[in-house]
Order: sequence, then C-alpha cells, then structure tokens
Amino acid sequence: MDFTAKIEQALSTALGSVITDACPPRLAEAVRHAVFPGGARVRPRLCLAVATACGSPDVEIAAAVAASIELLHCASLVHDDLPCFDDSPLRRGLPSVHRAYGEPLAVLAGDALIVLAFENLARVLAEDPARLAPLLLTLGRAVGMPMGIVAGQAWECEPKVSVADYHRAKTGALFAAATAAGAQVAGADAEAWRVVGDRIGEAYQVADDLRDVAASAQEVGKPVGRDALLNRPSAAGELGVDGAVDLLKGLVKGAVEAIPPCPGAEQLAAVLVAESRHIMPKGLADRA
Amino acid sequence: MDFTAKIEQALSTALGSVITDACPPRLAEAVRHAVFPGGARVRPRLCLAVATACGSPDVEIAAAVAASIELLHCASLVHDDLPCFDDSPLRRGLPSVHRAYGEPLAVLAGDALIVLAFENLARVLAEDPARLAPLLLTLGRAVGMPMGIVAGQAWECEPKVSVADYHRAKTGALFAAATAAGAQVAGADAEAWRVVGDRIGEAYQVADDLRDVAASAQEVGKPVGRDALLNRPSAAGELGVDGAVDLLKGLVKGAVEAIPPCPGAEQLAAVLVAESRHIMPKGLADRA
Repeated sequence: MDFTAKIEQALSTALGSVITDACPPRLAEAVRHAVFPGGARVRPRLCLAVATACGSPDVEIAAAVAASIELLHCASLVHDDLPCFDDSPLRRGLPSVHRAYGEPLAVLAGDALIVLAFENLARVLAEDPARLAPLLLTLGRAVGMPMGIVAGQAWECEPKVSVADYHRAKTGALFAAATAAGAQVAGADAEAWRVVGDRIGEAYQVADDLRDVAASAQEVGKPVGRDALLNRPSAAGELGVDGAVDLLKGLVKGAVEAIPPCPGAEQLAAVLVAESRHIMPKGLADRA
Repeated sequence: MDFTAKIEQALSTALGSVITDACPPRLAEAVRHAVFPGGARVRPRLCLAVATACGSPDVEIAAAVAASIELLHCASLVHDDLPCFDDSPLRRGLPSVHRAYGEPLAVLAGDALIVLAFENLARVLAEDPARLAPLLLTLGRAVGMPMGIVAGQAWECEPKVSVADYHRAKTGALFAAATAAGAQVAGADAEAWRVVGDRIGEAYQVADDLRDVAASAQEVGKPVGRDALLNRPSAAGELGVDGAVDLLKGLVKGAVEAIPPCPGAEQLAAVLVAESRHIMPKGLADRA
C-alpha cells in the first residue's frame, strides 16, 4: 500500500471538511501552509504501518487517525516556531507560518489544527463510536498535560528539567501514540505497542540531534546548529556523531525487538529499519 | 440545583485528571490561573440550564460537558490576551496568563486547555460512546474552522470583515454550542436549541459592548474602553447606550421565544431573563 498517498489524501479530506467559503481566507491559507507540503510524515506513516501489521481492514479509518496525529504534529511545529519559542524563520524549507502570515494567524492556525485533529477523529469514527473514546484519549495523552507535547515544550520554562522527561514528552509521546493508535484501529492491545513507538521516538530524537550538527539547513529545511546555540540537550553533543549513530542503531533494534506478535511483524521490522535510514542526515545514512 | 458548584467541581475534576506530579509545575499553575477563579461561567451555566430544562437525568455528565465548554472559553481568553492580539494586562481582575507566567506558558496553557476540553469529553463519555461523537462535533464546530472562535478571532486579520460573521463566530458559536450540547446531553434535538444560544450570544456581545463603555475596569476585571481604542465594531458605539440596552432586551426576548417545548421551559425562561440582568453593567441592570 502507498502509505504516503493515503495520508496526503486523508489530510486533504480533513482540511476540506472545515476550510469552506465561510472560513476567513488567510486563516485557511495559514492552516494549509502548516500542513502542505509536508515533511517526512514519519508519525502518520508509523501509525499506518502498525495498523497494517496488526491486520487492520480499515485502511481509510487508519489513514484518518494517522492524519489526526500529523495535524497535531503540525500544530506543535507552528507554535514551537513562534517568536516566544524558537523564533524559527524556516520550516520544511519555506517561511514558518508566523513569518508568512504573522504571529496572530500562527497562534490561531495552531489552535485550529488541534481542534481539527479531534473533530476529524469524531467525524471518521461517528459510525463506530466504541473506538472513538480510546483513540481520542491516546491522542490527547500524546499532546496535552501531564506528559504530552505541550508539557514537553513547557519543560523549557522550568528551572530544573530531566532531559529524559523533556524528550519523552516533547518527541516520544506522539510516536508512542502513533503505534498505540495504529494498534487500536486494528483492535490490538495499545499498551504493548507503545514501547515500539517510544523507542522509535527516541531514535528520531537522536536523528534530529544528528541532523542539527551534521546536515545542511537546505537538507533539513530549517536552521541547523540550534541545539548548541540554544544550549539544548543533544545526544550528538554529548556522545559525538559516532556515539549518537550507535545509540540510534541500538534504539531501532530495540524497537524491532519490541514488536508484539502480529501478522505483519516481519514486514514492519523492515519498514522500521528503512525509516531509520530515511531520518538520518544524508552523509550518515550508510552508517545506520 | 446549584449550577455554579457543579461546574466548579467538574472543572476541578477535569484539571485534576491531567495535573499530576509528572506535569511541569509552572504549566500546571498557568492552567489553573486560566481557569480559577472563574468569571461568570455564563456558557457552562447556560449548558446546564438547558440540559436540566430538557429533563436530563445525567447531572454529572451535563456538568462535565459544560466544563469542557468553559475550558475552551478559558483557552480562547488566554490566547486573545496575548501580546500579538489584545495584549491585555488583566483578566478577571488578575494579571492575564502571559503577564503572570510569560508568553510561552500562555501559548502552551491555551493549547493544553483545548486538548483537555476534548479529553474530558472522552473520559466522561467513554461508557456512553454514542453520545461522544455528536457532542465532540458540537464543541469542535464552536471553536474551530470555519465558523468557531478561532475563525472569529482570525477575522481580525482580514482586510474585509462582516461584523455579524465576526461576532457570530467569536462569541455566538460557543453560546450556540452551550445550548446545543445541553440538549444533546438530554437526548433532545440540538439544532432546535442552537437558536436560543445564538440569541443569548448576541445579547451577551451587546452586554460586553455596554460594559466596555459603561462599566469600570474594576467591575469588569479587565481594561475598558478598548473597543473605541482598537476601533472594534460595537453595538454601544453604533446605537448609543439606550439603543444597545433596547437591542439586548429584544435579543433576550427572542431567545426566550425560541425555547423549544420541553419540561422546564418556563423555569429556563426565567433563568435567561435573570442572566441578562447579571451580565449588564451594574448601573444599567435595572433597565434590562
């Protein structure tokens, strides 16, 4: 199955359900700018891959759930880029939303994307309500308090921070939700699948650290060298490039070993390994 | 029934479900600051009053749904007060969230409250999933695109605005959701009840305009005279105080006339009239 096409289609459908003639046109543009063109769509592809591995027959529902996860991710990027946080001028190689549309519309576009993520779930699962509450709680836990993305970002405002808690909330939580939600769509046990997402999330964080030291801004589509500049914790900074690559490989291996028994376990393992190469800086990909 | 106590309890329960030891402490404080002490809780009281008028036996569920509505309202206040919008130093007589905790935590507290509003619905209705999707869609429509609060606020960023569309989205939508959701909790027809909320929302907007010209900052708990200063459309500015009071009375009468047949129609009518006095500036209350 072409996961990427399914996800782009599900994202278009979700946006199309609320971007009507009645919508303020610049808000609609800002929201589209936040979602299209996308990045690697790592989280929704992981969600779809897990749903497929678990034998889910509902590709459309799985893609819609995956799209809600990506909408929440896009919302977090728009708000993280705001002047009061990273003040990033670039995102995915284009001006960030606040640079393109101004700060007010960036705040509102992020808000609108959060709302849409949950509405989209309700719309898709209206005929299958028993699955709605568990999936909604999985997504809410990944983005809200006490340990979702919002909490992760908020650790930057605390005088004392555990780096592990910070990364687990800011990055890991949505990866864990991607695998948990994929399993839930298929009727499998969500908790058993969270570990896989946790480890992939940690690996992704290490890859992000590596890209920040070893990739060009053009390749990444946003400024690099920010971790050192902003004095943020970084695996690449602490362990060096080689140490960080080894860590990443170990995390992906751990994720593969944590895959619960399921019809598509072998194929999923191959996908995870391929993905780990995909997220590395180009010059390092052969080492992963 | 003491609606106010029920609502405060439901808000405490909602916050308590996500503010744990694992939560970044300053984010938790900022979120509490955004919700407690509350304002008049007009929207959740309206929701509970409608659920009661429709004969809902589920007071706890009605109060939880009402609390989700109030959480979304609080989120919109926190974000509206941000420097890139109104830059309001005060809210409910205390420093606004960004003045008390800084802009980053104000952005995050608003985000966290939106997420919590939907999580709270899912948590409360997990055992009654058939009601979850319709209620979630009612709340989503009230706050998202194309015609919810976020869209209403976004009209401020457009070169051309219909004042009616602006107010209907920014203020009316959540009032319509309050009556619609109250009806849905009781199993009544949501659409028939939206009209009541629409009219109360319009009346509330007029009252807000009146407070802006005719009340003290101390009474309102936020700066006054802002509409003229920011050149915002205002019924009091266009019609004068007397004209605006007449308009408000007409709108409340219209809301009362729109109440669909239900067991508690008469009592609800009395509540709506009493509320309309409650929201007026003190010196004008006798005229409404």
